[in-house]
Amino acid sequence: MFSSEDKFREECGVVAVYANPEASKLAYLGLHALQHRGQESAGIASSDGNTVFVHKAMGLVMDIFDEETLLRLPGSIAIGHNRYSTTGDSALLNAQPIRVDCNKGMIALAHNGNLVNANEIRSRLEKAGSIFQTTSDTEVIVHLIAQSREQTLPDAIADALRRIEGAFSLVMMTRDRIFAARDPRGFRPLAMGRIPAPDSTRADTIVFASESCAFDLIGATFERDVKPGEMVIVGPEGVHSRYFAEQKKQSACIFEHVYFSRPDSRIFGRSVQLSRDLLGRQLAREAPVNADIVVPVPDSGVTAALGFASESGIEFRFGLIRNHYVGRTFIEPEQRVRDFGVKLKLNPVRSLLDGQRVVLIDDSIVRGTTSRKIVRMVRDAGAREVHLRISCPPTISPCYYGVDIPTKDQLIGANKSVEQIREYIGADSLAYLSLDGMRVACGEGETTAYCTACYTGHYPTEFVDVKDIKPAAGLVVK
Amino acid sequence: MFSSEDKFREECGVVAVYANPEASKLAYLGLHALQHRGQESAGIASSDGNTVFVHKAMGLVMDIFDEETLLRLPGSIAIGHNRYSTTGDSALLNAQPIRVDCNKGMIALAHNGNLVNANEIRSRLEKAGSIFQTTSDTEVIVHLIAQSREQTLPDAIADALRRIEGAFSLVMMTRDRIFAARDPRGFRPLAMGRIPAPDSTRADTIVFASESCAFDLIGATFERDVKPGEMVIVGPEGVHSRYFAEQKKQSACIFEHVYFSRPDSRIFGRSVQLSRDLLGRQLAREAPVNADIVVPVPDSGVTAALGFASESGIEFRFGLIRNHYVGRTFIEPEQRVRDFGVKLKLNPVRSLLDGQRVVLIDDSIVRGTTSRKIVRMVRDAGAREVHLRISCPPTISPCYYGVDIPTKDQLIGANKSVEQIREYIGADSLAYLSLDGMRVACGEGETTAYCTACYTGHYPTEFVDVKDIKPAAGLVVK
Amino acid sequence: MFSSEDKFREECGVVAVYANPEASKLAYLGLHALQHRGQESAGIASSDGNTVFVHKAMGLVMDIFDEETLLRLPGSIAIGHNRYSTTGDSALLNAQPIRVDCNKGMIALAHNGNLVNANEIRSRLEKAGSIFQTTSDTEVIVHLIAQSREQTLPDAIADALRRIEGAFSLVMMTRDRIFAARDPRGFRPLAMGRIPAPDSTRADTIVFASESCAFDLIGATFERDVKPGEMVIVGPEGVHSRYFAEQKKQSACIFEHVYFSRPDSRIFGRSVQLSRDLLGRQLAREAPVNADIVVPVPDSGVTAALGFASESGIEFRFGLIRNHYVGRTFIEPEQRVRDFGVKLKLNPVRSLLDGQRVVLIDDSIVRGTTSRKIVRMVRDAGAREVHLRISCPPTISPCYYGVDIPTKDQLIGANKSVEQIREYIGADSLAYLSLDGMRVACGEGETTAYCTACYTGHYPTEFVDVKDIKPAAGLVVK
Amino acid sequence: MFSSEDKFREECGVVAVYANPEASKLAYLGLHALQHRGQESAGIASSDGNTVFVHKAMGLVMDIFDEETLLRLPGSIAIGHNRYSTTGDSALLNAQPIRVDCNKGMIALAHNGNLVNANEIRSRLEKAGSIFQTTSDTEVIVHLIAQSREQTLPDAIADALRRIEGAFSLVMMTRDRIFAARDPRGFRPLAMGRIPAPDSTRADTIVFASESCAFDLIGATFERDVKPGEMVIVGPEGVHSRYFAEQKKQSACIFEHVYFSRPDSRIFGRSVQLSRDLLGRQLAREAPVNADIVVPVPDSGVTAALGFASESGIEFRFGLIRNHYVGRTFIEPEQRVRDFGVKLKLNPVRSLLDGQRVVLIDDSIVRGTTSRKIVRMVRDAGAREVHLRISCPPTISPCYYGVDIPTKDQLIGANKSVEQIREYIGADSLAYLSLDGMRVACGEGETTAYCTACYTGHYPTEFVDVKDIKPAAGLVVK
Repeated sequence: MFSSEDKFREECGVVAVYANPEASKLAYLGLHALQHRGQESAGIASSDGNTVFVHKAMGLVMDIFDEETLLRLPGSIAIGHNRYSTTGDSALLNAQPIRVDCNKGMIALAHNGNLVNANEIRSRLEKAGSIFQTTSDTEVIVHLIAQSREQTLPDAIADALRRIEGAFSLVMMTRDRIFAARDPRGFRPLAMGRIPAPDSTRADTIVFASESCAFDLIGATFERDVKPGEMVIVGPEGVHSRYFAEQKKQSACIFEHVYFSRPDSRIFGRSVQLSRDLLGRQLAREAPVNADIVVPVPDSGVTAALGFASESGIEFRFGLIRNHYVGRTFIEPEQRVRDFGVKLKLNPVRSLLDGQRVVLIDDSIVRGTTSRKIVRMVRDAGAREVHLRISCPPTISPCYYGVDIPTKDQLIGANKSVEQIREYIGADSLAYLSLDGMRVACGEGETTAYCTACYTGHYPTEFVDVKDIKPAAGLVVK
Repeated sequence: MFSSEDKFREECGVVAVYANPEASKLAYLGLHALQHRGQESAGIASSDGNTVFVHKAMGLVMDIFDEETLLRLPGSIAIGHNRYSTTGDSALLNAQPIRVDCNKGMIALAHNGNLVNANEIRSRLEKAGSIFQTTSDTEVIVHLIAQSREQTLPDAIADALRRIEGAFSLVMMTRDRIFAARDPRGFRPLAMGRIPAPDSTRADTIVFASESCAFDLIGATFERDVKPGEMVIVGPEGVHSRYFAEQKKQSACIFEHVYFSRPDSRIFGRSVQLSRDLLGRQLAREAPVNADIVVPVPDSGVTAALGFASESGIEFRFGLIRNHYVGRTFIEPEQRVRDFGVKLKLNPVRSLLDGQRVVLIDDSIVRGTTSRKIVRMVRDAGAREVHLRISCPPTISPCYYGVDIPTKDQLIGANKSVEQIREYIGADSLAYLSLDGMRVACGEGETTAYCTACYTGHYPTEFVDVKDIKPAAGLVVK
Repeated sequence: MFSSEDKFREECGVVAVYANPEASKLAYLGLHALQHRGQESAGIASSDGNTVFVHKAMGLVMDIFDEETLLRLPGSIAIGHNRYSTTGDSALLNAQPIRVDCNKGMIALAHNGNLVNANEIRSRLEKAGSIFQTTSDTEVIVHLIAQSREQTLPDAIADALRRIEGAFSLVMMTRDRIFAARDPRGFRPLAMGRIPAPDSTRADTIVFASESCAFDLIGATFERDVKPGEMVIVGPEGVHSRYFAEQKKQSACIFEHVYFSRPDSRIFGRSVQLSRDLLGRQLAREAPVNADIVVPVPDSGVTAALGFASESGIEFRFGLIRNHYVGRTFIEPEQRVRDFGVKLKLNPVRSLLDGQRVVLIDDSIVRGTTSRKIVRMVRDAGAREVHLRISCPPTISPCYYGVDIPTKDQLIGANKSVEQIREYIGADSLAYLSLDGMRVACGEGETTAYCTACYTGHYPTEFVDVKDIKPAAGLVVK
Repeated sequence: MFSSEDKFREECGVVAVYANPEASKLAYLGLHALQHRGQESAGIASSDGNTVFVHKAMGLVMDIFDEETLLRLPGSIAIGHNRYSTTGDSALLNAQPIRVDCNKGMIALAHNGNLVNANEIRSRLEKAGSIFQTTSDTEVIVHLIAQSREQTLPDAIADALRRIEGAFSLVMMTRDRIFAARDPRGFRPLAMGRIPAPDSTRADTIVFASESCAFDLIGATFERDVKPGEMVIVGPEGVHSRYFAEQKKQSACIFEHVYFSRPDSRIFGRSVQLSRDLLGRQLAREAPVNADIVVPVPDSGVTAALGFASESGIEFRFGLIRNHYVGRTFIEPEQRVRDFGVKLKLNPVRSLLDGQRVVLIDDSIVRGTTSRKIVRMVRDAGAREVHLRISCPPTISPCYYGVDIPTKDQLIGANKSVEQIREYIGADSLAYLSLDGMRVACGEGETTAYCTACYTGHYPTEFVDVKDIKPAAGLVVK
């Protein structure tokens, strides 16, 4: 059960379509399927062979695009981008795709991830006379491409990508080609798919997307992941692959499996559903509890909770109901209703909880305040005992690769012991999954190795100066 | 898991608040909790003791109301109403609450249900010179109140309510009082709750709502159901109850338990969650199947599926993921994607379904077209066998009491045998729950008796001429 | 130069179209031409022979209607209505046309004017059991029609119109007919026009509108005014006329000539342009002044100023420029700019005013505050002398016939002598046109006699109790 | 009477405010006063000393900005920009101010005018690795500033301005300074004004604006024009002036006096009102006519018509009424109303025109189609003769300096003789003002010399290749 929650935010989801008469419409549907990866803004660029068009705006994909806006995105090539939610209209400046005119022609680019040497490059480029119109780290990539001395565009892109450090799954387009690339450590997912041509006179449609669930909606078949360090080029001459850099030690974001990706997606060569099920099962083995029912914190805790229930033999129950109508702003009564914010989203089912010993399954504790309210809510609904189980280790460190995690001083896991956290949130017991347990559940070593920096503080890249690095452009501290 | 689906539509949800300085804000929150009962329009009326204000508009509660509109709804008394979605702005004319000026003063009224003698009364009133400004059956009620020869307002309301036939759970307000009433057969739910006063100098806040889940959000405690035939009057003199008519044989809408109400609500004296769990368990007993996993059609089939899984011992799995971002209008590619409409809302989890024998649990089959697409989608995702189980009997007859069910010729259950339906939807097996099984699961006879007319064609009220009766005002034939 | 000013407000403009395949589109254009008569809300009702459709909303005609909304107003008959601006959405309840179902069938009605016995009738109707859903006096008319014992609709309408007192220019429609009527005193204008059929197989289109300028835009020819006490009925049988009441002494609103109507309109059998020109000329004769330039307060004072300039031989100059982009709400700096509100709308042309003796021509002084600011502004721009001339007598009394004039205590003309007013506004001299001068200029006795109650306090109708009468529904006290 | 017409379009209006606690609010009011210079989009940038904020959007100033958006533009320095209307959301990319980060810090820039060597510079910059994110010529200016090797920002700006050719009136801001500059030929106006500080502890507010009418609204006093070739720098150290280039032969846009600027503005050291009055008087002398009335085509022809009337002694009459409610899109009936488009905006006053010999005064003929319709409309209203007089010479050549004039093949003046034009538009006589007459009327040689290229085809700048030059970015061919 993927989530419209906003516990964590990631920038972003990307999609690309090559050689389809309805390219922008397929991009739009793909973005819709990836809506959970970013709800702030969305954009699509398309090309009719002569011009690269672009339309982007604040809001949800389905609110931004309609028949009319899609008509203004003609052509058979398109890329799209979803971005997460911050406040303020001016954030439109940072919406993607970014489209530029440069000596390599018209280029549009959409980026998922976060660069760790963007500030350094930006500062160097500015010194040399470049101007920056956004606050996004993505803008440095187009500058590097434009300034590359390589003669061909593929070479220039490869040159640029070698100069950036950090997490990037990119889709790019010119008037007649799509380029898709992933950083050499493979932080963020990016998959390639195919829609077979209706007849032999036409070429297959090639598509790229952050998650395979986007393929399902548009009738495309998953073909393979773009490899770390690989750049796939799709054009009139067909599909070509090259490596712009050697693969480094893999550091796929394990949090994609734990929280971000939709369970119906396949990422890093593995089903998200499977990983979450095993996270729950492993948790049941590591931290068993005598209880009557297993209750997930919906929507993101559901799959792990099912795994926990199966493994433990304790009945699974939807003891908390999620209200999907909740929007951005909500008006609170002045006479405070206790835990109002959580109540707007979750309502306990008293008939299920009353008198029960409850195992509550969630996928993370950030500051602890929400968990505390949920535990209290479950207790208020009559639960006799509330045991909280978290399907990953304590989050102790921010992410510099594209996930919006608060700074250390705001992370309860970085500042309190598990027992102290238990006490704070008021649970009868609390347990986190072990780091090794999490790795095993997510198939560490089978198809990839994982970045677990947010649980360990060990970052796979070097930083010139950590303090200078923005954890994520537009980071919302919570 | 309550639903934002639009398989069936009901008019509507109602809420009322007496003696709270933030009456309209509480009404607004209550309506938000009842959003699943109607997404077309919403409205709130409030009184500051002198004037009855009203604001209503098309759309969702959270889009219609903001700080500014709530400021224009001052006072300590309020009622609110949600209505389901049809097309066209002019439907605003039918939005509720209806506010009128008449010889009994200013009255505002919100109505959940459907009258079966509205046309007859309307025609009689028009002959006598009344004018009608809406096409809603609710308007006849205020005419009847205005024209009653009874001297007091409670007597006039009682007089009016005795003249109408059918389903009505009403909340009404004047400048200084709330009236809440339910028809003598008790078709639709209506509950009373209480928010204790912060100190002894102030009176408790009395609230009414279609479902108890509205109380949870605003911090109210469920007190009791309004009884069939009862009118509860809340005013400066306190809470009073009277019966405007004798209770008739109870005919509570069983579909509220099967589909409409939120599982975290308590209606007709019974937890919805419990009913749905038992529906699933009973279904497992009546129609067992050899299979590997139980998969619900989300969101409405989830609770019954959990019951089925528990009873059968087959593993429960979220094999279909629901996309909660789906809005009203969506643009389909011209080159049809097979089963596009269903794919927008549901995506199969291939890793769960592949190679499995699947029991799919849903709460109804209307025309069969959607079920057919879902079965096909599950099979396309690799399921070896697909067994469909429905947690109620075949729907064979429209509802005249407030649920938007298509006409007989469009109901597959009214026109085909179960085997024919199975063949049409392409399942390996298909079974419905029995009528008796459904009744037992919903606690028939314990706290109420049920109307099951949509499954039997036996209606608890008489009709002068069925053809003349609009099944529901603004009925959307699907 | 008609005005987008909001010094005075009137309800409203009406239009009707019979037998045209684009009836609602012509109604829309007619309403656009009449936009100056009401900017609060607008609505159109149309009939395709079976149903009367209606669409109304808050705002300007061009913002409310587009291709899509007009498509939902099919058929060859339509009526439309503009209403002036108050605050609050709930005013939508009072928007017109009002459409009702009654024993005479479906009726839609649009009304310009104000009834003086509406409260009395309403109270009587309420006592007899009628309910009122709006606060508009127009609603009583449809009640009276519905309750009339006359057998035919024309007779019932005539019966109803005989029972109401005050100002009314009405257009009404059923499924297949248009009715247009004016009160026996002829307070408000209403004209009939014709668009010749494109060929002999089709009938001419008959149109009605508050002012003839609406005909110009839709290519219709002015035919004649609807007569006081007359009801014109247009239907399949052609155009018929009858008198529902004897004409009384005429009391056409002289303020329509002075201020409201567009100068390119012909009302009460006379060109508005001509009246205004003569008002200015008469003013020059009655109150001559030694000055260098004549400057109008735009837009409404322009025509009279031209007359004044011609008659006096003093040069006419646009010394005040009006900003037509001004909208509803405007943000004022906290450090007050002097006379900010007036400056937003008017800017003095220093090069014209500097060192000059200026005759400023305006069409009224209401509270005096705006005139004071304008005089100061003109002086600040360098004018040596500022002589204010008003093209009508002092306004001393509110209007009960459809014009939104403040109450006596707010009218500076009712509370101060001319010399005191001059002193207050800071002009070097001030003169108003005489009552007789105004009458002569507007052609009193030639084609009609005028109501001048706002200048004299002598009202042409009787009132049961003046205090009970609302000057205008939704009156905005300024 | 300035105009909301769209005969010609210019980019744009600019405004700047230094050292005022309500800087962005004053910028907003200034933009409102300059709304006639551009209705497509508007934007404001402000600085609180640390950051440069920006908000821009499509639409009118009063629709884009409200209390909330202005709150997000804090600080005591601000610049603003209005741009004219084209279609398409993507034009938002071209909205100004442009804000960039570069080696000179944060800079925001707003530009009125058009560069003639922008393509050449852009192409050179792109070759050197610069990227362009807009299609506006303004973007090259910021690139040039960023790439300048000058050490200080003022030097770098001066360096950049020396490299660009064409028309530019610029306002620029950094975190703590305002820069205002005009090209050495002085094509477009730019004035400096001052709001005296409320007390001696505070500094005066310095403001800049395209036209002095913006000063009137915010209570500022006109101080002087920014000189051609001058850059005025306002910062903590006070107001400083320097010349970045020698003044060249002046070529102030004469069309600002003829059409664009508001008559209440003072530009190029001269009152616009005065110029227009003299244009009309000169026209009366050059092309006298025996007629009964002088009628302006409102709004832009009004002042010249008054001059014509004064000089000729023929009566001035508002024979055409302009409807100021006209918006962007309007729905036309399918059965064409003759000259519908013109009728929406203008309506003839039959009572004035009937039987008269009319001199119609307009300020230009572009394609001739509109003039033809207006002449026909005046004739249809009964005019016996229609003599058209144009207050400038025939427009025969496009503008490359910021005015949106169609290409030569679309300009009737470039392709037909005056007699042929007269015949086409159907006037009884037609005369244009002579070139010398226009120059004299606008004070040629007194305070400035004028560019008259659109009347002569003689351009004051050189072009590398005229074909390559875009007449105006986003040119709308009509």
